[in-house]
Amino acid sequence: MVNAVGTLSGVGVGPGDPELVTVKAMRLISQAPVIAYLAAAGRESTALAIARPYVPATARHIVIDMPMLTERAPGEKAYDAGAAAIAAELDDGRDVVMLCEGDPFFYGSFMYVFARLSPRYRCAVIPGITSMTASAAALGQPLSAREDVVKVLPATLDAQRLREELATASNAVIIKVGRHFAKVRGILEALELGSRAHVVIRASHADQRVSPLAEIAAEQLPYFSTILVFAGPRPW
Amino acid sequence: MVNAVGTLSGVGVGPGDPELVTVKAMRLISQAPVIAYLAAAGRESTALAIARPYVPATARHIVIDMPMLTERAPGEKAYDAGAAAIAAELDDGRDVVMLCEGDPFFYGSFMYVFARLSPRYRCAVIPGITSMTASAAALGQPLSAREDVVKVLPATLDAQRLREELATASNAVIIKVGRHFAKVRGILEALELGSRAHVVIRASHADQRVSPLAEIAAEQLPYFSTILVFAGPRPW
Repeated sequence: MVNAVGTLSGVGVGPGDPELVTVKAMRLISQAPVIAYLAAAGRESTALAIARPYVPATARHIVIDMPMLTERAPGEKAYDAGAAAIAAELDDGRDVVMLCEGDPFFYGSFMYVFARLSPRYRCAVIPGITSMTASAAALGQPLSAREDVVKVLPATLDAQRLREELATASNAVIIKVGRHFAKVRGILEALELGSRAHVVIRASHADQRVSPLAEIAAEQLPYFSTILVFAGPRPW
Repeated sequence: MVNAVGTLSGVGVGPGDPELVTVKAMRLISQAPVIAYLAAAGRESTALAIARPYVPATARHIVIDMPMLTERAPGEKAYDAGAAAIAAELDDGRDVVMLCEGDPFFYGSFMYVFARLSPRYRCAVIPGITSMTASAAALGQPLSAREDVVKVLPATLDAQRLREELATASNAVIIKVGRHFAKVRGILEALELGSRAHVVIRASHADQRVSPLAEIAAEQLPYFSTILVFAGPRPW
């Protein structure tokens, strides 16, 4: 008798608080024979830390060890190796749950595994809470209403593009701020948006912090930092 | 002895599938002495339909009956009445959970209640899964990666603004499409983006549908329809 081939599920585990995992993600994780996740250069996986309350003790772990380099080639090799390890489990008839910070398809790393395996295997994607809306909740300010346009801008964009996008934005969410904070702050201040910007660090984590941009003295922020900019009128 | 005043929690219940409620939302709903929600002109509340598996039989219900008009004045009166009913429960020491489709602070109605009550009462916001990422999951296509800029555009925007925003977008999510579908399709086709657009109807609901824009014959779509546009190169 031939085993059926397994299914790969990319499961969003949300921004940090294990309670911001969905009921569906909790169910899939708690039943998973195999879990997979990224770990940055030997450090503990953030996605695993979030999901840990739900991971069965018996689960096999596939760790995709990701060198933290700006060049793409080493990352590609790590994804190749991770995809091969996942494929081996799927071929043996075991389902694999890949844990993804935030949402798997919103600036997530899952897509690189998905691109490699979805042509050959059944794949499911379970959306997760993004740092974008978790940051608005932490700040206690609505992100958007009615006819607001919201722009999501990676802080890694070059300064000119960032400036152009912010100059024409009503509401903006700047993600992955981290070591790009000084650049982003300079652009916001040049556009006279500094007083309309708020920083949320590690939204929904136990050590979450929220601050007006103007009150931040540091030149860098943790990677999981988001800046919300409310450039337009607030319609309520 | 004086009772403590209650807390108002705005709880995102996600896009439709009751399993896409977070563990935190499930816990708050299942312990709620009072739940509140909008109902459109006497119809069943979508947020209640999603949360129903978790609502205790003993919960008191505050229905904010919302006339479906484009004028703002009747809506304002409904929010005034709803906020007053919630305030009465909070004053009596009962916590109130307001059920919100998607995320409370992402184009949600909760903010109108929040604006009225947050100056006087303790309020918490629990983020929810948005139709934006649920639609990408349904489609099986990543919404964004690396340095992609994502624009969220309400289909209710006037045609000229929509055209300007789409002309300069890399990735865009057009929400609240419904009866604005013909206008949006016309703009996308004029910008030669029709073949890069996909329609997701009622993402994560049992009757979810996914289709390339070009294959939709209808002139209108259900309100809970989203169009994803991938105008830039896909980086994976």
